[in-house]
Amino acid sequence: MNFASDNWAGAHPAIGAALLSHGKGVSAAYQTGEIDRAVERQFCDLFERDVAVFFVPTGTAANALALTAAARPGGVAFCHADAHIAADECGAVEYLAGGLRLAHLRGEAGRIDPAALRESIAHYPAGSVHSGQPVAVSITQSTELGTVYSPDAVGAIGDICRAHGLAFHMDGARFANALVRLGTTPAEMTWKRGVDMLSFGATKNGCWCAETLVFFNPEMAAQMPFIRKRAGHLFSKSRFVAAQLQAYLANDLWLANARHANRMAGELADVLRKAGARLPWPVEANSVFPVLKKAVAARLREAGATFHEWQAGQDVAPDVALYRFVTSYATERAEIDRLAALLA
Amino acid sequence: MNFASDNWAGAHPAIGAALLSHGKGVSAAYQTGEIDRAVERQFCDLFERDVAVFFVPTGTAANALALTAAARPGGVAFCHADAHIAADECGAVEYLAGGLRLAHLRGEAGRIDPAALRESIAHYPAGSVHSGQPVAVSITQSTELGTVYSPDAVGAIGDICRAHGLAFHMDGARFANALVRLGTTPAEMTWKRGVDMLSFGATKNGCWCAETLVFFNPEMAAQMPFIRKRAGHLFSKSRFVAAQLQAYLANDLWLANARHANRMAGELADVLRKAGARLPWPVEANSVFPVLKKAVAARLREAGATFHEWQAGQDVAPDVALYRFVTSYATERAEIDRLAALLA
Amino acid sequence: MNFASDNWAGAHPAIGAALLSHGKGVSAAYQTGEIDRAVERQFCDLFERDVAVFFVPTGTAANALALTAAARPGGVAFCHADAHIAADECGAVEYLAGGLRLAHLRGEAGRIDPAALRESIAHYPAGSVHSGQPVAVSITQSTELGTVYSPDAVGAIGDICRAHGLAFHMDGARFANALVRLGTTPAEMTWKRGVDMLSFGATKNGCWCAETLVFFNPEMAAQMPFIRKRAGHLFSKSRFVAAQLQAYLANDLWLANARHANRMAGELADVLRKAGARLPWPVEANSVFPVLKKAVAARLREAGATFHEWQAGQDVAPDVALYRFVTSYATERAEIDRLAALLA
Amino acid sequence: MNFASDNWAGAHPAIGAALLSHGKGVSAAYQTGEIDRAVERQFCDLFERDVAVFFVPTGTAANALALTAAARPGGVAFCHADAHIAADECGAVEYLAGGLRLAHLRGEAGRIDPAALRESIAHYPAGSVHSGQPVAVSITQSTELGTVYSPDAVGAIGDICRAHGLAFHMDGARFANALVRLGTTPAEMTWKRGVDMLSFGATKNGCWCAETLVFFNPEMAAQMPFIRKRAGHLFSKSRFVAAQLQAYLANDLWLANARHANRMAGELADVLRKAGARLPWPVEANSVFPVLKKAVAARLREAGATFHEWQAGQDVAPDVALYRFVTSYATERAEIDRLAALLA
Repeated sequence: MNFASDNWAGAHPAIGAALLSHGKGVSAAYQTGEIDRAVERQFCDLFERDVAVFFVPTGTAANALALTAAARPGGVAFCHADAHIAADECGAVEYLAGGLRLAHLRGEAGRIDPAALRESIAHYPAGSVHSGQPVAVSITQSTELGTVYSPDAVGAIGDICRAHGLAFHMDGARFANALVRLGTTPAEMTWKRGVDMLSFGATKNGCWCAETLVFFNPEMAAQMPFIRKRAGHLFSKSRFVAAQLQAYLANDLWLANARHANRMAGELADVLRKAGARLPWPVEANSVFPVLKKAVAARLREAGATFHEWQAGQDVAPDVALYRFVTSYATERAEIDRLAALLA
Repeated sequence: MNFASDNWAGAHPAIGAALLSHGKGVSAAYQTGEIDRAVERQFCDLFERDVAVFFVPTGTAANALALTAAARPGGVAFCHADAHIAADECGAVEYLAGGLRLAHLRGEAGRIDPAALRESIAHYPAGSVHSGQPVAVSITQSTELGTVYSPDAVGAIGDICRAHGLAFHMDGARFANALVRLGTTPAEMTWKRGVDMLSFGATKNGCWCAETLVFFNPEMAAQMPFIRKRAGHLFSKSRFVAAQLQAYLANDLWLANARHANRMAGELADVLRKAGARLPWPVEANSVFPVLKKAVAARLREAGATFHEWQAGQDVAPDVALYRFVTSYATERAEIDRLAALLA
Repeated sequence: MNFASDNWAGAHPAIGAALLSHGKGVSAAYQTGEIDRAVERQFCDLFERDVAVFFVPTGTAANALALTAAARPGGVAFCHADAHIAADECGAVEYLAGGLRLAHLRGEAGRIDPAALRESIAHYPAGSVHSGQPVAVSITQSTELGTVYSPDAVGAIGDICRAHGLAFHMDGARFANALVRLGTTPAEMTWKRGVDMLSFGATKNGCWCAETLVFFNPEMAAQMPFIRKRAGHLFSKSRFVAAQLQAYLANDLWLANARHANRMAGELADVLRKAGARLPWPVEANSVFPVLKKAVAARLREAGATFHEWQAGQDVAPDVALYRFVTSYATERAEIDRLAALLA
Repeated sequence: MNFASDNWAGAHPAIGAALLSHGKGVSAAYQTGEIDRAVERQFCDLFERDVAVFFVPTGTAANALALTAAARPGGVAFCHADAHIAADECGAVEYLAGGLRLAHLRGEAGRIDPAALRESIAHYPAGSVHSGQPVAVSITQSTELGTVYSPDAVGAIGDICRAHGLAFHMDGARFANALVRLGTTPAEMTWKRGVDMLSFGATKNGCWCAETLVFFNPEMAAQMPFIRKRAGHLFSKSRFVAAQLQAYLANDLWLANARHANRMAGELADVLRKAGARLPWPVEANSVFPVLKKAVAARLREAGATFHEWQAGQDVAPDVALYRFVTSYATERAEIDRLAALLA
């Protein structure tokens, strides 16, 4: 009963097999080989335009290097206070982007409120060296709280970015989960709504290690080859990432994996609700956040279930707490059935 | 006929198979799972002492984060002018270590000359804020020029480090190649001769992606978990590295791979010498540096051989140049035979 | 009628005269001359203990270098959301301290609420690389809103710092104004209540340029000489700062200047209150924050008064706004009388 | 007998008097006041074109911030191995410019050899992420060894910069000394020969603290206001710098001061030569580098003369050493006469 994280899962058999099949032979290093180029073209097809594609080792690297490309001296980037870059990446953005600051915004259910964004931007008058200069906005899709931005909601943020000359970054660590939930296209969910840079995550959804930073505007990526290399994020044997991504995108494996994870989350939510748990916001991707009695949580853990307590900010009673359960491509219905039995 | 680099090779079948076998099941992320712990213990056994072990994505990351751990404000680290950190890592050390400077030393055949090291250290009088403060020395084993430091030569540098309170780092991107050449133990080649931190490379010797930063003094690693995470170098699905390393160290696969690569280099050297090429320094690991007529090099390339021209500093005639040929675990004798036939 | 800022004032005649008197003769550079040593001893006397003293060019430098000395990888420092380091220094802390993050706290009238501090610290569980590690707390005395921390209020923060192993920094850009208000000693207001590092400002209170970073624990300052030099903040002709500070501290000039500025602020507050302005919090130093009708503010400006509009966060009606008026050693009663006449 | 450094001198009486005269009254802070604007116009006149002018606290700040403005990821700047930024600024460039590397060049008598520059640039093939990318060249005028670049020599470096798209920085800590030696104009010695950015030093030549960073191409300075502020290098009471500079440039005080210092250096050189000292290179500004018997140097010091031993690289016998003597606007002939008497 692993609900601790989708990154506690391993790799889909098709991903492993693809890797194995590329073990032999020679390929130029540093994302210059034929397979690397082939995957780059796949990304162009996927997004229906020319994109610049950079393989990186981790989602943290993807996020921080994207914002590094957008940074300027005294710069400020805006994100939700619960964003991964704000709460879970050990200050990677501030460190790698040379002191870039993150302005933390509130907003319901993990989504930035456009009004709050506008108000925060207004704290930085143009040309004031004292306050600094806004340079970027980053949103997470799906959010840290398992909700999604509709394409229109993405576009609303995109409009503000355009109006203020800000780069628009999307942390897509769980991009596929949002995509299948919304039933839209990668293009509609990104650049058609103003997104400039995307951290395209595949690790949590069935790969070993396959994170890609995508620039929809190649000009913004002009310095990226140097930005990635000097940060130690340029793989030598890049084909091992490329091979994973080929298998990931082939036959819509990525979409099937995400659909499965989302479906499991939905069923898990039903089980929890039936057991009387309150879910403070809707389950729209592959994370479920129930408010549970601490005694119940303890009992589940004793029985072998793994899941995390979450920092609430919620107004909860002393004997209850907010928890996070995450499903993945590898979650089995039997795990949910066992949990249901334990809760009964 | 791939002699471009050992990182143009793929992965040894045993490595791929090991990965595949760990694709299923659940393992805690971020190098906290059971397999991670098991590999950490393997490293302790290998080095005959307690060591702190950090998986990282690239050799550049390993090197730069090691020196970050040793850095102090106004710090200077000493390395050979041809060192990878000095010439081939896009300033990663300077960037990631907060402006740490590298003092470039000369020395024959890619090895730091202890006298040159002592002389350079003397340029930084203790307590002078103007010149800055020495903090570390980094050597490469085997060197960028395919030579090795004997354990005594390592110890000579180690003595200087102790005398001046400097951290001692070894870039072991090709650690195994040096080890089998010298016929010594990992401990004798490192901490027993004063090495504090080792970039233990496995990628070039048969893995997909398996670089490990080893601290022989766990106290020096106190900040490393944060140093690694904030740089975006902490893998979530760490077992994909651990699984590679298990297979790599099992049955001495790593030593066999390195012996093969070194033997191929030796045979290649013979072939080149027989064809009249001059080799300015001995071939002690898996790189061969012949001075060839440019016309000959062009002919080899036309026939499909890959290899790099090298920045010489050598006193060479206008129609000749220095080249680098690298062998790997995957180099086949047939490749060398073909090269010999072309040279005949 | 200058109420724009105390840094729009010039220099007290005694400060200028002192400078002039040290124009001749030879003095060793880089804060190693006799006059530098003499001033360092004055600081030891002033604070009733051995302190380490570093002259720096600006308050921003003092604050950011203090926090640099306290920084660790993935570090977080806590401050009020209105603190100068958070709102007015262009990200200097984040930049100079290698990506150190500032966690912004709320609290009434510009003062950190100890409960809010404890709650924020709790978001960083010990050893969690994801959230990062708390390293310091910074308070401003007197605050950005012209209020002061009582020695006990300082001590309450100091206790939390001790309990969590955090460095405690005080931004004393207007240290003298707080000191004379509280009628206490420099020692009581700082290290006796747990403060480790003080930005001792003199520029706003009658000097040309005399900011000093004081460490109450010399061990914490071990790297400061290098931290200051590599940031370009080590003056060569340091005696020009030392000479100002000698005159500043002589005959309690600094206390007299601060008393005058505070008294002027008190009278200004009376004038504003009499004119019907609301002052949302008490005037405890040399800044006054009235809520004024915008039409009134415009009329004052037309008549030559200078002052700034302040970002409110206050619940104010559309036709009013929050403004900041600052007095200084050079404010003349006639300026306040003129303002009173204009308001009448 | 102060020959230790020109920064051991105080301030010229005219500078002090100017400061004193600006002590009263109100002036907008942060280099936005009327006197600031007036000085900016003086610089435009001086250089016969529109320039962007930034007051900063130290020469180290001026140099490092100039190169920060020119930096790009993985960037390399070229300078003489003896340059102040390379040898005496504690790594400020590497730190403040986000890891920018300095490539150290050799060249006779402190001047970069254009051939060596071209050769070094060639080590960084365009687009190679491994080696990084050249971004700037920095020369020192007059040099650290008291020699000068002729305008044509400046232009030769400028041509290389243009050819390779590199920013061209001049460290003019002793700009005036070079200018009066060459008898040319500020424009001829800088932008007319390709210089983009100048650290215009006045502190060593009679001011207290007056360093200015001048951009000849205002576009290159677009981010400078933020670069300066976030580094803590923006003075609040900027008029105290402006007032010094007004007096410095008025009545050609700066040229008179420099002429005096250079003349004193010439006379000192004569004295030393007559006493049998060898001067390895010509005395062209205000520094004199004699090779002296160590016993003689000791005797001079006992008699009260201050001067520094210099790191030689010179082939000197065991009983002799290279020393540096610096003269300034304040050096008196009597000091030289006393030295002559001691040497006789």
